[in-house]
Amino acid sequence: MQSLIPASVCLLLAATVLAQKPHPCKSPPLLVGRVSLVYPKGQLFVFERFSYDAFGQRVRVRLGGVDHNQTFHKDYLLLYREGLVYEISYRNHTCSKMALEIPFQPMEIPHDATFQAQVIIGSSSAPGEGLLVNNFIGDFPHSEGKYFLTFTEFGCIPITSLTYSATAGYFLASYFDIVIGIEDPEEFIPPDFCDTSKPVEDGEPVTDLFEALLQKNNQ
Amino acid sequence: MQSLIPASVCLLLAATVLAQKPHPCKSPPLLVGRVSLVYPKGQLFVFERFSYDAFGQRVRVRLGGVDHNQTFHKDYLLLYREGLVYEISYRNHTCSKMALEIPFQPMEIPHDATFQAQVIIGSSSAPGEGLLVNNFIGDFPHSEGKYFLTFTEFGCIPITSLTYSATAGYFLASYFDIVIGIEDPEEFIPPDFCDTSKPVEDGEPVTDLFEALLQKNNQ
Repeated sequence: MQSLIPASVCLLLAATVLAQKPHPCKSPPLLVGRVSLVYPKGQLFVFERFSYDAFGQRVRVRLGGVDHNQTFHKDYLLLYREGLVYEISYRNHTCSKMALEIPFQPMEIPHDATFQAQVIIGSSSAPGEGLLVNNFIGDFPHSEGKYFLTFTEFGCIPITSLTYSATAGYFLASYFDIVIGIEDPEEFIPPDFCDTSKPVEDGEPVTDLFEALLQKNNQ
Repeated sequence: MQSLIPASVCLLLAATVLAQKPHPCKSPPLLVGRVSLVYPKGQLFVFERFSYDAFGQRVRVRLGGVDHNQTFHKDYLLLYREGLVYEISYRNHTCSKMALEIPFQPMEIPHDATFQAQVIIGSSSAPGEGLLVNNFIGDFPHSEGKYFLTFTEFGCIPITSLTYSATAGYFLASYFDIVIGIEDPEEFIPPDFCDTSKPVEDGEPVTDLFEALLQKNNQ
């Protein structure tokens, strides 16, 4: 009987180690924050303020950045359930409505991603000097591409998302200043002057937000 | 007299705000940690385990990485005061000694760097989900180049160092798993079999560690 005790302790330890291995996770469903984007193909550096609602599948993004040495500012409301994206200009009181044909992508480590490494950004020697994060890698299910994701161990907060595809190259998103919760729920409601905007533009529907943004800025 | 009170409160607040603006800082003098390096010109990705002693101006680095699709491993001991660098191979019991003509560069935000932004990597909504960091930019004093440094607000721990020069391009170092203190002080003492190595090689002295490393791997 006594010989069983070390074996059971070993099993318990093994179970603890297995349980401690970081697993894919979902970020909190309501977030606001900022993100810097680097899209090498089009030399796009975007600094974005975003509000994210995974319950309602709604995203509001205010973009500002430099593309081919020209600065630009944009304000988008993406309503994935309605399949609509609004491009809003408060200054001109204009609003253009386009079809949105991208499925909603929740902020998460996909369930089939592979755990790569757990590291501390900074130092663990004193409180407030470091951040425990997990790195995951995976392949896109429907295209020839890879992703490298870094999320916090506590809270599943996104830190960086690096994606690579043969057609688009590397695309790096670095998140910061994230707050759990929505500061202003009205950000997800189109402003009054959008009611009078044309139903849906005849042009191409939006299938890739960043490709669309690049094309718009190159026109 | 009473009218002076609001003025003095304002002055006090102004002084507090000024005092709170992040200032250049020096990292702790004894550190061990890891760093990933990206050197686009030579497609070098190095994952380094380093020990850093600013008191003795000594650095030990164990490099491993991929250069032009070939993996490599190196072990260097840099003694800046003696002006020597040892390349050590425990497997072959060999040691090559070279002159080191680079001045010691402490881990710090240079005093003339310009504060750019304070951000939270991750989230401040719950403990352990975010890290408060400061971004600084500056110009190299003796060459046409720029640096972008991110260090923690608490502890002045390096997070990223991005340098740019017209000749070398972008060079990115990302630090992680940093511990304050030296785990093994013997790492800064050359192993016994180095005593029998030739005094100093006739070849070029090391003036840029990464350039030297690249050349060695391309030979």
